[in-house]
Amino acid sequence: MSVDRHPFLQQILTNIENTGRQVCVGLDPDIELLPAGYDRSLLGVEDFLRSVIDCSHDLVVAYKPNISFFEAYGIDGLRVLERVIAYIPSYLPVILDAKRGDIGNTSRMQARFLFDSLNASATTLHPYMGEDSLTPFFEYTSKFHFVLGLTSNPGSADFELMEMKDGRPLYCHVLDKIVTWNDRYHNVGAVVGATQSLFKSIACQYPTLDFLVPGVGSQGGGYTDIVDCQSPRLGLLIVNVGRSILYASQQKPIAESVRKSILSL
Amino acid sequence: MSVDRHPFLQQILTNIENTGRQVCVGLDPDIELLPAGYDRSLLGVEDFLRSVIDCSHDLVVAYKPNISFFEAYGIDGLRVLERVIAYIPSYLPVILDAKRGDIGNTSRMQARFLFDSLNASATTLHPYMGEDSLTPFFEYTSKFHFVLGLTSNPGSADFELMEMKDGRPLYCHVLDKIVTWNDRYHNVGAVVGATQSLFKSIACQYPTLDFLVPGVGSQGGGYTDIVDCQSPRLGLLIVNVGRSILYASQQKPIAESVRKSILSL
Repeated sequence: MSVDRHPFLQQILTNIENTGRQVCVGLDPDIELLPAGYDRSLLGVEDFLRSVIDCSHDLVVAYKPNISFFEAYGIDGLRVLERVIAYIPSYLPVILDAKRGDIGNTSRMQARFLFDSLNASATTLHPYMGEDSLTPFFEYTSKFHFVLGLTSNPGSADFELMEMKDGRPLYCHVLDKIVTWNDRYHNVGAVVGATQSLFKSIACQYPTLDFLVPGVGSQGGGYTDIVDCQSPRLGLLIVNVGRSILYASQQKPIAESVRKSILSL
Repeated sequence: MSVDRHPFLQQILTNIENTGRQVCVGLDPDIELLPAGYDRSLLGVEDFLRSVIDCSHDLVVAYKPNISFFEAYGIDGLRVLERVIAYIPSYLPVILDAKRGDIGNTSRMQARFLFDSLNASATTLHPYMGEDSLTPFFEYTSKFHFVLGLTSNPGSADFELMEMKDGRPLYCHVLDKIVTWNDRYHNVGAVVGATQSLFKSIACQYPTLDFLVPGVGSQGGGYTDIVDCQSPRLGLLIVNVGRSILYASQQKPIAESVRKSILSL
């Protein structure tokens, strides 16, 4: 069956076919965790992330920098993010994890920053404020948008897993809405955490939705368990792995350890 | 009754007593909307916001810049935000509206940016990901944190107002949690929109919670309707007014119109 996919997804699919994997690497730099040999400064962070990209770009389908790990170093940190994004080869989409969402005219401003200034290919969004807080993102039709469904952290039990009046949990109602939005805009997917024992059933229950899947590696989720849920789903599973790849080596040069950590997933 | 309030709230209360009002001005600059006479550039934005602060600082209890309206102009826009925050007199708390929230180690990075780099006094947070996504903020004990409860936009109907298993809407469960968090950390309040017909009953139902109240003015909420709900609540109501004050004048000089728009609320 031939499917007309959004250009972002088409690029991911091509990369999955070329690498034989569906790994996205989370670029979440922490100066405290830099391998020995890198300067403990923003210059060291930039140097380190370039090394990670240099040695992993032929093994991954996308990169997912989390903007917060750059913001943490102030405005200069955001300059590093700009340069890191520019350094990523153009065939590798940049999922800029930003978890945004506000009233409509404010969301429009957020989208401008992520897409027009920082040149992201995709982002992540908080669903709490509902549809009109998200449509200014969806209206960036060339971009892709992952709305939080069921996240990988313990706090997902507080609200996401709470039972609604119809007996189904909140996150299912959010996923239902994401299906509706994707039907309309064709550029909306969901974040569903790998640490959730429910992952397999959610993957089956929403077979057309594209998932960004965090939580593999340091957070405890297993890569193969997730990838085994891909077929026969139409929606893609993009598995993000962060710290266990990024900090695979404790010292420079890092290439061998980083590649090994991806290849052994 | 004497109450031991958080320093942020104590300052707000002092400002309420001094001004006889509980107005917070939203600093959400939009180059397209700048009054005639201001350069349509980031320099013009900065000049404009300084004028707004100059003519309003003795009439308001706090300022609430929304970071998204600065980010929209890229990293240079954030430099303007830094300078605008530095320009605000120290007795006026800066509620940096950022609507953050992520997994724990990421939220820690977000908090560093808002509080350590940008020197905010308080911020706003998305509850969806639950407690461990918020505690890294609460642990900034000298800062104050407003978690979204019931927002002022139409999309609040999508999830916030949905009925849970016990027949109560989601936002009530979120407000219940906020009460618990505030009991533990003493620095957590809620965002409750002025446009909600439920506002009065929510204000009564949660009398100890401090509310940040957006939605007055251009969005349709009435200032006096909100302020009438203050007594005998212990928790403060901080009423944010944005566009209707900021763009009260269509041309420079703006002072008279801005002051009039605050005084006539």
